[in-house]
Amino acid sequence: MRKFSLYENGKIAGILVEKESFEGIKIIGKTVAKDIELVTGKRPTLVRDLNGGIAGFAGDDTEGRGTDETAEGGSENLILMATIGKSSLLDRLVSEGKVSVEDIAGKREVYKMTLVDAPFSENDNIKKLLVIAGSDKRGTIYGMFRLSEMCGVSPLVFWGDAKPLQKDELILDFDEDVVSKEPSVKYRGFFINDEWPAFGNWCTEKYSDVNAKAYEKIFELLLRLKGNYMWPAMWNSSFSEDGPGLQSAELADKLGVIMGTSHHEPMCRAGVEWQNQYKKYSDDNAWSFITNEEGIRKFWEDGILRNKDFENVITIGMRGEADSKLMPEDATLKDNIDVVKKAIKAQNDILKEQMGPDLKDVPRMIAIYKEVEDYYYGDEETEGLKYWDELEDVIFLLSDDNHGHVRALPTAEEAKHPGGFGMYYHFDYHGAPVSYEWANCNRLTKTWEQMSLAYETGVREMWIVNVGDLKLNEYPLSFFMEMAYDYEAHKEINKTEEFARRWIGTQFGEGATAVQKDEIFRVLEGYTRWNATRTPETMSENVYNPVDFLEGDRVWEEINRTYELAKKLDGELSEPALTTYRSMIFYPAAASLNIMLMNIEAGMNRELAMRGSLYANHYAKSVLERVEDDKKYVADFHAYNGGKWNHMMSSAHTGFRSWDAYNWSYPLVSEVAPIHEAKAVVSFRGSRQIDLGSHWQGTPALRSDGFTRPDTNSVFLDIDSRGDIGFTYSIEKTSEWLICDEPEGRVENRKTVVFRVNREAIEGEETAAAKVKLAFDNGVVSETNLEFIAVRDVSSLSSGLGVGNPLDNGALNSDNSGEQDAGHNTFIERQGMIVIDAEHFAGKKDAGESGFQVIRYLGKAGRSAVKAFPTAVSYDEKEIQKGETPCIKYHFAAEESGAYDLDFHCSMRNPIVRGGRLSFGFAVNDGEIKIAHEVPEGYFTEWQCDEWGSGVLAHEHVAKAKIELRKGLNTISVYAGDANVVLEKLVMHHEKKELPQTYLGPVESPMR
Amino acid sequence: MRKFSLYENGKIAGILVEKESFEGIKIIGKTVAKDIELVTGKRPTLVRDLNGGIAGFAGDDTEGRGTDETAEGGSENLILMATIGKSSLLDRLVSEGKVSVEDIAGKREVYKMTLVDAPFSENDNIKKLLVIAGSDKRGTIYGMFRLSEMCGVSPLVFWGDAKPLQKDELILDFDEDVVSKEPSVKYRGFFINDEWPAFGNWCTEKYSDVNAKAYEKIFELLLRLKGNYMWPAMWNSSFSEDGPGLQSAELADKLGVIMGTSHHEPMCRAGVEWQNQYKKYSDDNAWSFITNEEGIRKFWEDGILRNKDFENVITIGMRGEADSKLMPEDATLKDNIDVVKKAIKAQNDILKEQMGPDLKDVPRMIAIYKEVEDYYYGDEETEGLKYWDELEDVIFLLSDDNHGHVRALPTAEEAKHPGGFGMYYHFDYHGAPVSYEWANCNRLTKTWEQMSLAYETGVREMWIVNVGDLKLNEYPLSFFMEMAYDYEAHKEINKTEEFARRWIGTQFGEGATAVQKDEIFRVLEGYTRWNATRTPETMSENVYNPVDFLEGDRVWEEINRTYELAKKLDGELSEPALTTYRSMIFYPAAASLNIMLMNIEAGMNRELAMRGSLYANHYAKSVLERVEDDKKYVADFHAYNGGKWNHMMSSAHTGFRSWDAYNWSYPLVSEVAPIHEAKAVVSFRGSRQIDLGSHWQGTPALRSDGFTRPDTNSVFLDIDSRGDIGFTYSIEKTSEWLICDEPEGRVENRKTVVFRVNREAIEGEETAAAKVKLAFDNGVVSETNLEFIAVRDVSSLSSGLGVGNPLDNGALNSDNSGEQDAGHNTFIERQGMIVIDAEHFAGKKDAGESGFQVIRYLGKAGRSAVKAFPTAVSYDEKEIQKGETPCIKYHFAAEESGAYDLDFHCSMRNPIVRGGRLSFGFAVNDGEIKIAHEVPEGYFTEWQCDEWGSGVLAHEHVAKAKIELRKGLNTISVYAGDANVVLEKLVMHHEKKELPQTYLGPVESPMR
Repeated sequence: MRKFSLYENGKIAGILVEKESFEGIKIIGKTVAKDIELVTGKRPTLVRDLNGGIAGFAGDDTEGRGTDETAEGGSENLILMATIGKSSLLDRLVSEGKVSVEDIAGKREVYKMTLVDAPFSENDNIKKLLVIAGSDKRGTIYGMFRLSEMCGVSPLVFWGDAKPLQKDELILDFDEDVVSKEPSVKYRGFFINDEWPAFGNWCTEKYSDVNAKAYEKIFELLLRLKGNYMWPAMWNSSFSEDGPGLQSAELADKLGVIMGTSHHEPMCRAGVEWQNQYKKYSDDNAWSFITNEEGIRKFWEDGILRNKDFENVITIGMRGEADSKLMPEDATLKDNIDVVKKAIKAQNDILKEQMGPDLKDVPRMIAIYKEVEDYYYGDEETEGLKYWDELEDVIFLLSDDNHGHVRALPTAEEAKHPGGFGMYYHFDYHGAPVSYEWANCNRLTKTWEQMSLAYETGVREMWIVNVGDLKLNEYPLSFFMEMAYDYEAHKEINKTEEFARRWIGTQFGEGATAVQKDEIFRVLEGYTRWNATRTPETMSENVYNPVDFLEGDRVWEEINRTYELAKKLDGELSEPALTTYRSMIFYPAAASLNIMLMNIEAGMNRELAMRGSLYANHYAKSVLERVEDDKKYVADFHAYNGGKWNHMMSSAHTGFRSWDAYNWSYPLVSEVAPIHEAKAVVSFRGSRQIDLGSHWQGTPALRSDGFTRPDTNSVFLDIDSRGDIGFTYSIEKTSEWLICDEPEGRVENRKTVVFRVNREAIEGEETAAAKVKLAFDNGVVSETNLEFIAVRDVSSLSSGLGVGNPLDNGALNSDNSGEQDAGHNTFIERQGMIVIDAEHFAGKKDAGESGFQVIRYLGKAGRSAVKAFPTAVSYDEKEIQKGETPCIKYHFAAEESGAYDLDFHCSMRNPIVRGGRLSFGFAVNDGEIKIAHEVPEGYFTEWQCDEWGSGVLAHEHVAKAKIELRKGLNTISVYAGDANVVLEKLVMHHEKKELPQTYLGPVESPMR
Repeated sequence: MRKFSLYENGKIAGILVEKESFEGIKIIGKTVAKDIELVTGKRPTLVRDLNGGIAGFAGDDTEGRGTDETAEGGSENLILMATIGKSSLLDRLVSEGKVSVEDIAGKREVYKMTLVDAPFSENDNIKKLLVIAGSDKRGTIYGMFRLSEMCGVSPLVFWGDAKPLQKDELILDFDEDVVSKEPSVKYRGFFINDEWPAFGNWCTEKYSDVNAKAYEKIFELLLRLKGNYMWPAMWNSSFSEDGPGLQSAELADKLGVIMGTSHHEPMCRAGVEWQNQYKKYSDDNAWSFITNEEGIRKFWEDGILRNKDFENVITIGMRGEADSKLMPEDATLKDNIDVVKKAIKAQNDILKEQMGPDLKDVPRMIAIYKEVEDYYYGDEETEGLKYWDELEDVIFLLSDDNHGHVRALPTAEEAKHPGGFGMYYHFDYHGAPVSYEWANCNRLTKTWEQMSLAYETGVREMWIVNVGDLKLNEYPLSFFMEMAYDYEAHKEINKTEEFARRWIGTQFGEGATAVQKDEIFRVLEGYTRWNATRTPETMSENVYNPVDFLEGDRVWEEINRTYELAKKLDGELSEPALTTYRSMIFYPAAASLNIMLMNIEAGMNRELAMRGSLYANHYAKSVLERVEDDKKYVADFHAYNGGKWNHMMSSAHTGFRSWDAYNWSYPLVSEVAPIHEAKAVVSFRGSRQIDLGSHWQGTPALRSDGFTRPDTNSVFLDIDSRGDIGFTYSIEKTSEWLICDEPEGRVENRKTVVFRVNREAIEGEETAAAKVKLAFDNGVVSETNLEFIAVRDVSSLSSGLGVGNPLDNGALNSDNSGEQDAGHNTFIERQGMIVIDAEHFAGKKDAGESGFQVIRYLGKAGRSAVKAFPTAVSYDEKEIQKGETPCIKYHFAAEESGAYDLDFHCSMRNPIVRGGRLSFGFAVNDGEIKIAHEVPEGYFTEWQCDEWGSGVLAHEHVAKAKIELRKGLNTISVYAGDANVVLEKLVMHHEKKELPQTYLGPVESPMR
């Protein structure tokens, strides 16, 4: 065991960064020293050269609490942080054969950690030297931060308040050298965007402006996350002007951060610069390359002149101001393409003039975003930009649909583009159909699944993610950066939970117990589950159905469980874990879950208010309390930890009435004023059938078919008051098997009576009646009739299942020879529907290497979903119809023969081919394979298509089909078709039976 | 001057009712004596014969406080209450030539009052004798109650608590004999119906049952109102069984009250009797004349046997139980007619057997109600009941549509029916499209206008009105009975106000001042105005538009004015007027108006809540307070005057969700939770355009065109808060003529800033801008732009009016020679519309005796309406198109030439011919006369037609037309068509401009 004692017996190792080293290495060296101090309580001495001074870097360590020890006098152990070609010591160690750098030399952004005993013959005070050697500057830096992580310092030590527990000793194992890989994606980073009011106000308060002091913290995070590229905030900022001056740009360059500008800001110029500075270049402020070419050209020239000495990926192309189109609505495609080409030509000319004739060496990117995509593809009459020579070496930056769903990925042919492809991805967006800028609404599984698809189609040159205000998106950002850095480690399916648990481990270390870390995982998974199922911004009282399938109650229960767990942990954790927890988990989780509960309750309130039930007021009160809690969570988040994150949670966050945060609100609640009458309203929970008591015209009995499900053993009867006259109830029932928990009682507001079933006492299927008698204090009496249907067990169901066990049914499996078959998954039609979660297929048939896989956590409400792999493979209709594509089968029993409606609930996704479809095959029993379409013809993302917009809001597409079933056993086979189809749920119901609309669809049917 | 001292110098006149007199006269004599005591404090002695005793009627004056005076010793003045043929004294006076009865003898129900000095030569103690001589029993009774009225005792002394002021003396003038006329309608009365929970509980509490004790009070009222006929309560009562026994029926007969049973209770049998008694007649309880003929026949025979000796109008025919059809839905018309004919034949047979062979002497009625109307008319294949011999002498009782609108009246041919026609009218209804059973929702003008129409088409044999619980309908009932008793006195137009003031005079006498009585009139007119515009039952937050045309504000203001006046009077009146006021006016008025205000405020609450304005909560609070007030008014009404009217106001009364009272409720209110943001919402009152302050995308200025109306001199700007951060506002404006009352101020919740116009400073039409700057306490600033359009005066309007004064426009009047012309009424298009109240026609052309008339108070919101008279005359399309029918003309100026939509708002009415239309003619300028239709083809009342139902709810029909206007002056001529068309308003707008939907329509345009 080769060990390196970084801190042992009160002694701390020293850090050696040579004078000749990159300025950035020196800066990060200090950062790492502080990291180590966080863990040990002692800051390593920073040594400039082996025989030189021991003090910190002169003049720039204002916080320095360096010891007086010298390397000679103090540290027996030293850490050398060096870059190949920028370190005499590394050269010497290599030449002495003590260190080998062959495996990293010439590579991009890699590092190696080697432990050398008695490294320096002339200096035997130094017992051990840990060499962190980088292939280049960023390689060294990544190695240095790797050391911090080994010490237990999270990359989120600042941004996530992930302060480590102090340790008495810090001894690292280096049995083997640590050698990093070249990053999977060349340019990897994030975009601070939509940064007002949260980030903007925070930054202004903490740093007086969005300036170099702020960017120091941001760059540090980028580098800790092994990123190298970023777009700066630009809503109201000029990165290269507000440093003050060039300070931010200079700092980026020192630290090895490659700067870009956003998709619509060409030539190193921030969006706001033109209107601020146009007078220098033109009399005209028009951002038009037709009327104001000369002025804009000069403006661009000055941008390049200013920033050309820094490491940049230069955005080229041209769009209108503020994310708009360049030309008027009536311009033709050719007009548009022509003006964009003209601008790009001018840009390339400027770059050649200033940076040399061969633009291959000048990293450039053009964003294929919104209308630019039309120019990129062109049409039959006008060639697009796609194969234009001028863009040959330019990265084509594709984009998701702003909501995390990739689209229009390169075809195999397009993928040959020499400049390569990038992906502009979103964890935050301000725009249609709705903005999400508050707490994290992203789900690692979706990011994994979509970015894998991008990577697999060749999108590997640049990954940049919009992180909004950055704060509260630490978690998905960590994942995105890690995936970009090492795609291979994330290639495998169903690894996100492992990541999440590892990430929690990184943040909390030993500050939380294993049980607590598991609970933290449940809170983190739980709140992102619900935020991803419906963003807080678009949450309203109309999302979860307050009645049907008990959706509101079920979701409320689940969410509340997570909410209570989140609060429990907040009361339980101690520092520093508590602050970490509050910073990245508790406040966003509790605030988000509270919003969800608030809106579900507002839906309950509305529904009960419409019924006149006084119990509506109970929910009204609760909603208003939750509004206060919402404000309190935001205020507490802004105040905790000394107000470190003041403003960071101040984005508008619920009740959006448009895409814009402008008109947000809390849900309205309704107040029911009791009538001065003896009136009740009686209903089975989950039913819209209500009864107001006996009436001269008579009403049909309230009917509950809950007990027809073998998994339902209790149903709830709500007896609510509508008036201010109290009453007692008593319940009379006809059947022994029907059990009532409280057959008599008094109702002031609501009384919920639980009915249970004793299935032993039932023969087959039976109906029982009961009567609720109400006696009001004013003497009025009233009654309500109830009817219950129950079955003894599944085998007694009237579904005509008596054709034998499906497993014995040779016919069913006749064409499935050699395939897997989990035939026990046979679902039973109950309550008029057959509902199967996609993961519960009964059989599976792969096609060579290809086959369906279950992806956990991917679907709505955290359900598993099913997708065919390899992820980027599509099959055409002919292949599908031949039945040669991967297949899964579902078994179920129908109550009736006849026409059924079949809804395939699919995850919201976009065709990966521009103008494409999301199709797949299905067949009923031994019928022919038909094609189902998840999206209509002419489907297109963003501002152009309603289906896209409603898919984004509801997080699903539904492919509808009409099928014929036979009474009894049936099989549905699903065949893989287009890539990017993700199946979540199958819902079937007889075409004459209307199913209520719910957000999550009906609950899965019982299985035989 | 011939005076009769009824009470003078402490001496009271005596009352003389001979032994031989009708029992009913004796009873009413006692009642009149008590009436006189109420006024004088002294009860007249009741004398049986001139020389006989002086005591009260033996044994039946348990409350008697008679004096010991004898006629000889006491009263110098006597009142003889006598009936021709039942009074020796009257015979003697006639034979002595002191009294003449020639003018009343042989007439029906008439009386004469004659003052005879020294009437009896043998008894000179008796100085004066007031003779009240009746042509028959009811004639005498009407005369006796006429005396009560002359003494100042209202017919509503009991039912309306109209207790008179006591007087020191009571001297009546009899310069001339009083001789009454024969009543206009033969059978006149009311129906106590839908009597639970109000009347039923009241009656049970006060009289232990709906029995003879209760009917004594009811009969007394009927007779005081000069009625003679009634249908008893039957929801849960048997009039002839619950007296107890026959007591009620016997009492009716004594008092001269002719009993009937309701439209669906034949043969003197109450509806509930069959199910209670069927076992006596049949093993089968089926109410079927097919399966159970024999049993039902026996049941009817027993009914006639029981009641045949009393004065009845016997209901015949047969319907299903509980107001339903007799035969199943699939029965043919012929099946139905056959079974009804069979039943009627059986009924007539029974009557002939028991009451004699000539049924001409047996008053009978058959109700042509609901489905019976189909049997009455028959169809092409099956002859109906209309001309069936068996019904020749039977009264055909027609019906309104249950909501006060007559329909299917007799044609001239049908009117020849020997049995004559009756009308079953409603002041109360339980059924579709909605019930009204609480406070009075009836309007005398409508009753007058509709019942006149019925009378004029020959409906004169029977008028019966459903008065629900009776209580609270005293006012319209008084009018109905008076109109039935003396139609001639009510034939003239626009006399209802006079009636109302006279009625108030009768109830309050000298207990209220003239000013107070005028205020009482305003309260009475005001509350019935709004209840008739929309019944409390169907009032909801969606009725009055909370925004457009300021409808909500305007209506609220008007209603609140009446409400405050009602409360002021309640604080001001003294007894006995106060109790009278509370009994018939205050409680129903205040409770109704409170309901209206509650719902308007709920609409405001909803609108503002949707905008996120915190001011919504102000309305929420107010609505909930009004709910409490509603309960308090009901409770107070039940408690005042010693609880005399307990239960009488307990009907469900607002928020009906169906026709049935079953599911009533108060309006829901919404609570707005403030966001923790600096946000305001700014809007002009009356506009849906709102502004939330400055925004990066920019919003158009809020625009007010209020000042384009010469009659609008102020507009209101509401600055409401949406968040919990306070703010100040300041207003900058550009124009001198725009005056702002408070250009700076602070807003916590709402601030309303008033802008005024100084028209002197305007040239023609001008636009002014203003800016509202908001400074929030957290430093956020925001602004809203305003734009005002104003005109100096009408002559400067841009409407192209410059063609000269319309009065000078010869062309306009060219075809109008000889007609009236009020040419000054020229309306101006403003705010995109031309709106003219129907009464404001500029010209009028009669056709012979026929012409349009303005009827005051007839329309929605108490507006005047216009109708062609004579009321029952219809014109066919050819007559209309020739322009020969009565005509009115409207002058107005349009802003633009082109196609306009023209809506004729008409009062809800039905065609008076079965299956007919409500059509009239109209012409634009000199264009051809076209036909407008108020109701569609196939229109039919009651359960059969949506247009009918929505007309009933909204109290209007709209006839729509497309017209072409020229810019500038135009004329619309309206030509009379079908009878029963009542025109309220004309609304025109350019077809491209959508007008918002409001309940009352837009406000009338300004006139030049």
